[in-house]
Amino acid sequence: MSTVGRVIRCKAAVAWESGKPLSIEEVEVAPPQKNEVRIKILFTSLCHTDVYFWDAKGQNPMFPRILGHEAGGIVESVGEGVTDLEPGDHVLPIFTGECKECAHCLSEESNMCNLLRINTDRGEMIHDGKSRFSINGKPIYHFLGTSTFSEYTVVHVGQVAKINPDAPLDKVCVLSCGMSTGFGATVNVAKPKKGQSVAIFGLGAVGLAAAEGARVSGASRIIGVDLNPGRFEQAKKFGVTEFVNPKDHDKPVQEVIAEMTGGGVDRSVECTGSIQAMISAFECVHDGWGVAVLVGVPNKDDAFKTHPVNLLNERTLKGTFFGNYKPRTDIPAVVEKYMNKELELDKFITHSVPFSEINKAFELMLAGEGLRCVIRMDA
Amino acid sequence: MSTVGRVIRCKAAVAWESGKPLSIEEVEVAPPQKNEVRIKILFTSLCHTDVYFWDAKGQNPMFPRILGHEAGGIVESVGEGVTDLEPGDHVLPIFTGECKECAHCLSEESNMCNLLRINTDRGEMIHDGKSRFSINGKPIYHFLGTSTFSEYTVVHVGQVAKINPDAPLDKVCVLSCGMSTGFGATVNVAKPKKGQSVAIFGLGAVGLAAAEGARVSGASRIIGVDLNPGRFEQAKKFGVTEFVNPKDHDKPVQEVIAEMTGGGVDRSVECTGSIQAMISAFECVHDGWGVAVLVGVPNKDDAFKTHPVNLLNERTLKGTFFGNYKPRTDIPAVVEKYMNKELELDKFITHSVPFSEINKAFELMLAGEGLRCVIRMDA
Ligand SMILES: NC(=O)c1ccc[n+]([C@@H]2O[C@H](COP(=O)([O-])OP(=O)(O)OC[C@H]3O[C@@H](n4cnc5c(N)ncnc54)[C@H](O)[C@@H]3O)[C@@H](O)[C@H]2O)c1
Ligand SMILES: NC(=O)c1ccc[n+]([C@@H]2O[C@H](COP(=O)([O-])OP(=O)(O)OC[C@H]3O[C@@H](n4cnc5c(N)ncnc54)[C@H](O)[C@@H]3O)[C@@H](O)[C@H]2O)c1
Ligand SMILES: [Zn+2]
Ligand SMILES: [Zn+2]
Ligand SMILES: [Zn+2]
Ligand SMILES: [Zn+2]
Repeated sequence: MSTVGRVIRCKAAVAWESGKPLSIEEVEVAPPQKNEVRIKILFTSLCHTDVYFWDAKGQNPMFPRILGHEAGGIVESVGEGVTDLEPGDHVLPIFTGECKECAHCLSEESNMCNLLRINTDRGEMIHDGKSRFSINGKPIYHFLGTSTFSEYTVVHVGQVAKINPDAPLDKVCVLSCGMSTGFGATVNVAKPKKGQSVAIFGLGAVGLAAAEGARVSGASRIIGVDLNPGRFEQAKKFGVTEFVNPKDHDKPVQEVIAEMTGGGVDRSVECTGSIQAMISAFECVHDGWGVAVLVGVPNKDDAFKTHPVNLLNERTLKGTFFGNYKPRTDIPAVVEKYMNKELELDKFITHSVPFSEINKAFELMLAGEGLRCVIRMDA
Repeated sequence: MSTVGRVIRCKAAVAWESGKPLSIEEVEVAPPQKNEVRIKILFTSLCHTDVYFWDAKGQNPMFPRILGHEAGGIVESVGEGVTDLEPGDHVLPIFTGECKECAHCLSEESNMCNLLRINTDRGEMIHDGKSRFSINGKPIYHFLGTSTFSEYTVVHVGQVAKINPDAPLDKVCVLSCGMSTGFGATVNVAKPKKGQSVAIFGLGAVGLAAAEGARVSGASRIIGVDLNPGRFEQAKKFGVTEFVNPKDHDKPVQEVIAEMTGGGVDRSVECTGSIQAMISAFECVHDGWGVAVLVGVPNKDDAFKTHPVNLLNERTLKGTFFGNYKPRTDIPAVVEKYMNKELELDKFITHSVPFSEINKAFELMLAGEGLRCVIRMDA
């Protein structure tokens, strides 16, 4: 019997309280409304942002909520007005959207859609301000408009990238967030030229994806910077050629890098969230042509501070959000890069668990083990 | 009788002490040495940088010195190894050079030549660490490698732009410094697209040249920002369409501009030297695509400070030096832009005095009157 137009009852992992293990519950998922799509999620992976909002430290607590935003699935049904997606399409839901109509979507340079850019405080659908999830009639909040820790979810069509149906969803699901962010930060924003040197600050999943971007760009040297030397062994597999631990030096790491490189690296990408690393990442690029790109999400009260002469000396400083990719327009082509073996993803996926063990994925991340844990929904 | 290879005796305006009127003296100008050129200066104009180093407040005082760096002249003779210039060539001496061999000169992006980039503390020629100027055998210091307040001067070949001999030197001399700096900051670095909005902070000569760059680029709105409302009337002739005086508002000028423009200007160019203006110029550009360019020379202890989220929201911050022009490679083409009437220069030249009255040019600048005063050497 077709589920189209009907409420679907399925399993979802619900976060009832901050910091408490998720519990798998039977939820009701309403049909998609205007400009919405209902997706059967097959694979979802865990990203730090899920953990931040589950932990809810320094965030607006919003519970009960269905977290999750890195995922791959198949369209089950579409709501009114949806013309470019149909049931059966393979898709990645994305935490930031593309309406294709606002000034940002029309700009070649921006991906910060006015309507659908990330909104961590919204727990309902834009169309009617209501949730599509409920348990016994009580609504459960959405998260980032994606809520992929559910067998079925409802997403605004502007947050859905339609991809090659041959792409293995258990791999390309990680392109929904972290891998695209880091990779895009390098290839779309820092844009190293072949043979240039690149410093990567922070060797977590995002930083390693940025390193992958440097490798694909043909960087001659990829200098990894991290406070945690445990990150270095793993990073070797990602083409990082040299390592600097700021703790090993008496002088600022930007000076260490300037000495290693005859004046500074050509490009740097900061993937830590630490304001000190942001400043160092800027000050370690070469004068005349150096470009520094900030990716990490800072604290509320941080201030970026540098002597303006560092700027006058023809350095460039930029920030990026989701690697400057427009989710619907650009992500399908990133999936193709993986299919053509230009971009490697498998090395990012260090763990896999069945849906019933989703809390293990949280434990792994909290312990700093591995990079991405893929959660199999059908298992 | 030819002067080639001989000492030339001629008139120069010598700064004997900080802040005291220059005095016109007879000086001896030695022949050009290896990689040097001796130039007969026909026109020179006064720039703020001359006044800063004459005043020598917060600078390394270095006297007696022959100031001057915005000028046009004709090559009188060339030293050993000079192959791309010959006597009779029309040239602009430039305060920053291009050796054509270092990493900066070989980079497409940089004009900060390792050998010849601006050095305000050097008072002698690089070749032998000696001055080419003397009075009764006592050396007089050079300034910026140009010292154009002299009928004849000796300049490193890397600091000489060979230009179209049909170009009127009494006009194009202002391209030696300020006009190229402001114009290039807009067209080479901020790069507004046709129809975009541009804010210019500081409506002095450099800021108005930046506005001329915005006009030439087809900007739809050119918003001028200055603390001195006296600047606004003049700026209208330069295509500035709207004015904001930060003193007229209770809120920060970046917020005023964001309100005027639905979220921020597309591009901004800071030409004040004030750290507050630098921060405002950055924060007033639109998220997603805004680009801010810093031109003004800050104080030693200034700190550029902003919340990193302003960067993460996909703004770009850059600084520039001499409008990113490579002096020998690029300035001849800027002169052609003037010849083709694409770029207007005459409106920048508000005064003209004979060499004997050079101190009047200083008085005009100190009184904030006009933009550029051209000094006629033959008069
Ligand atoms: N801009 C975006 O669109 C976007 C998207 C996703 C994630 N992010 C942000 O990217 C950052 C990285 O994410 P992740 O998942 O890779 O995090 P992660 O915690 O796995 O890795 C961060 C790494 O940075 C290192 N680090 C911390 N402070 C440092 C310092 N001062 N110097 C050097 N290294 C330092 C840590 O040791 C760690 O290895 C986070 O701030 C995250 O919020 C941004
Ligand atoms: N980067 C370079 O290569 C280069 C080259 C030449 C000049 N410069 C610098 O460019 C700057 C401008 O030069 P200029 O000759 O036009 O100077 P100027 O003094 O003629 O003009 C500066 C203008 O800025 C205004 N101003 C000062 N503080 C302000 C503030 N907080 N907000 C708004 N307006 C403010 C002043 O009222 C003045 O009208 C100077 O700092 C100069 O040193 C840089
Ligand atoms: Zn949009
Ligand atoms: Zn994420
Ligand atoms: Zn050079
Ligand atoms: Zn100047």
